[in-house]
Amino acid sequence: MPPFAPLVAGLPATVPFVGPETLERRRGVPFAARLGANESAFGPSPLAARAMREAVGQVWKYGDAPSFDLSRALAAHHRTTPDSIMVGEGIDGLLGNLVRMMVAPGDAVVTSDGAYPTFNYHVAGFGGVLHKVPYRDDAEDPDALVARAHATGARLLYLANPDNPMGTWHDGTVIAAMLDRMPADCLLVLDQAYAEFAPASAIPDIAADDPRVIRMRTFSKAYGLAGARIGYAIGAPDLIAGFDRVRNHFGVNRIAQAGALAALADQGWLAHVVAEVQAARLRIADIGAASGLTALPSATNFVALDTHRDGDFARALIAALEREGVFARMPGVAPLDRCIRISAAPIHELDVFEDALPRALAALSPA
Amino acid sequence: MPPFAPLVAGLPATVPFVGPETLERRRGVPFAARLGANESAFGPSPLAARAMREAVGQVWKYGDAPSFDLSRALAAHHRTTPDSIMVGEGIDGLLGNLVRMMVAPGDAVVTSDGAYPTFNYHVAGFGGVLHKVPYRDDAEDPDALVARAHATGARLLYLANPDNPMGTWHDGTVIAAMLDRMPADCLLVLDQAYAEFAPASAIPDIAADDPRVIRMRTFSKAYGLAGARIGYAIGAPDLIAGFDRVRNHFGVNRIAQAGALAALADQGWLAHVVAEVQAARLRIADIGAASGLTALPSATNFVALDTHRDGDFARALIAALEREGVFARMPGVAPLDRCIRISAAPIHELDVFEDALPRALAALSPA
Repeated sequence: MPPFAPLVAGLPATVPFVGPETLERRRGVPFAARLGANESAFGPSPLAARAMREAVGQVWKYGDAPSFDLSRALAAHHRTTPDSIMVGEGIDGLLGNLVRMMVAPGDAVVTSDGAYPTFNYHVAGFGGVLHKVPYRDDAEDPDALVARAHATGARLLYLANPDNPMGTWHDGTVIAAMLDRMPADCLLVLDQAYAEFAPASAIPDIAADDPRVIRMRTFSKAYGLAGARIGYAIGAPDLIAGFDRVRNHFGVNRIAQAGALAALADQGWLAHVVAEVQAARLRIADIGAASGLTALPSATNFVALDTHRDGDFARALIAALEREGVFARMPGVAPLDRCIRISAAPIHELDVFEDALPRALAALSPA
Repeated sequence: MPPFAPLVAGLPATVPFVGPETLERRRGVPFAARLGANESAFGPSPLAARAMREAVGQVWKYGDAPSFDLSRALAAHHRTTPDSIMVGEGIDGLLGNLVRMMVAPGDAVVTSDGAYPTFNYHVAGFGGVLHKVPYRDDAEDPDALVARAHATGARLLYLANPDNPMGTWHDGTVIAAMLDRMPADCLLVLDQAYAEFAPASAIPDIAADDPRVIRMRTFSKAYGLAGARIGYAIGAPDLIAGFDRVRNHFGVNRIAQAGALAALADQGWLAHVVAEVQAARLRIADIGAASGLTALPSATNFVALDTHRDGDFARALIAALEREGVFARMPGVAPLDRCIRISAAPIHELDVFEDALPRALAALSPA
């Protein structure tokens, strides 16, 4: 076989996440509760669902490359101009393009130890060198991240606010204050996948054309369109224009474009979902507490439950939950990995979790 | 603004294709006939459309990362195993990943002068150096391509069979015979986007695990799912596994996965579309002949019409057709650019073209 390019030849063949369908095929039976990927089982707006069904009739056409209508609607939503918006194939796709745009082989990139693995995957994939800063009190540590960016000459600093996988968050003023302390050649990548679930005070007030930061938003979480693969970046027009140098211009699904446009227009449904998620977070905390697990505060659509044990225990608990029909995930590194992470979901799925958790814990106890 | 990585800083900000919606926004009025992107206005299988509408109910879930069901069905369809199949976001997305996998900055890549611009865009985007071989008698020139691959030490040799933008093709035995003459470190990228429209003799008989070639297929053309963004590669398992090192693992739209699976199962609809396309090719040739344009032979869902003039004339004709409400495209380089390219379409749209062509030509004639 002709050889891979040297950079790719040196990459591992591993996959950042194993999806629930893959686990179900191994199990031979579907999960009873899908609580591991922070999807929204509350679903998208019925108006978005209708728009997507109607868009099927036009699916023989390629999508509109600039996602013009959606970009314009997003610009109005965020009180900016369309040249500050880039629609892409979810945040994962946008992050891949952004890393390619900004990171040359050997360049330093700063993130938190235990933060989003897919970002790390993209950085490694383009030859970047990751520098990881520990979480502090189960939250990302802005001061330490900025200091590390200076110390390493980083090109990107990744921060999710609210955070995944812990669910914690900083006030928006803390994030905004980071900008004045960023190294001149380093871009802040602010992942706001969970912004719609967070208190308004967690959203920093940043001008759309601020060249020091790019913000990533998605229709996968609160808008319930994970399988549609559509998200967007907000940034300075010169930076946003850079995506057109590398992206797959006709890569966004036409049905997704229609669904996202309709979903954005139905802010009432969004408010409904956010309220359901708030209730679900309380319920998850209660279910955990009944078994001695403590919920961390969350501004997302999931709850990290502290087992008060170690990573080996939590990993065994995830496996035991899987045997009970519950798909869940957990942070990947210590000390975060003493927790398991449970996605907000409708009542029936949380009933399944409520039944399963005590049984799963019991299965782990010495006889 | 933090600077782009050097490779990306050197890339042009141009876009390989301007989409019809962008042209419509400039015109201020929709096209009456959309004949420029080789989409299938015959649409997808009604069973595929139904499967997609049903899949909307599950769109809150991320897609299945390995596209397991579809990969298995495709493997059965091509009489191979799923580890020889990689499903991706259309051929465009797969080509981008493939170039990234195989081409390091400065590496040589061979293609034909006038062949698929999006492939060239990806090669330039990863720092590859393109070497272009002229068409010969309006067809790609396998002997010259192989010779150039040897002369340049190329890592990839791109060939579309049937060809785009000319519609011509080589017998499958000609393509298969190329394999024995490829340089050892060079992979043949055989773009088969139009294979379903071609005579069986145009499809080379190649073992799925042959490490010298990767074949690209799509649901965008004959299957009528361009807007769904789903295609697949067929290749040796070690090569196919390489995609997992760089791809966006959850990047394929869940509705597209359902649609492609149902489309593949409805080979009767495919046969219907292929028959409609054959009839449409004859009609396009007749329409052209009535105005003095000569159809090139085509094994695709489009027809190149020779204006018997030069590129300036053909470009003016495309612009005049656009003013008449017809979206069409043309080859980008001489001498191919003496032709215009018209996509097969249902009767009504070809009626529009039949009316528009004489008027567009008359508008170009000196008064």
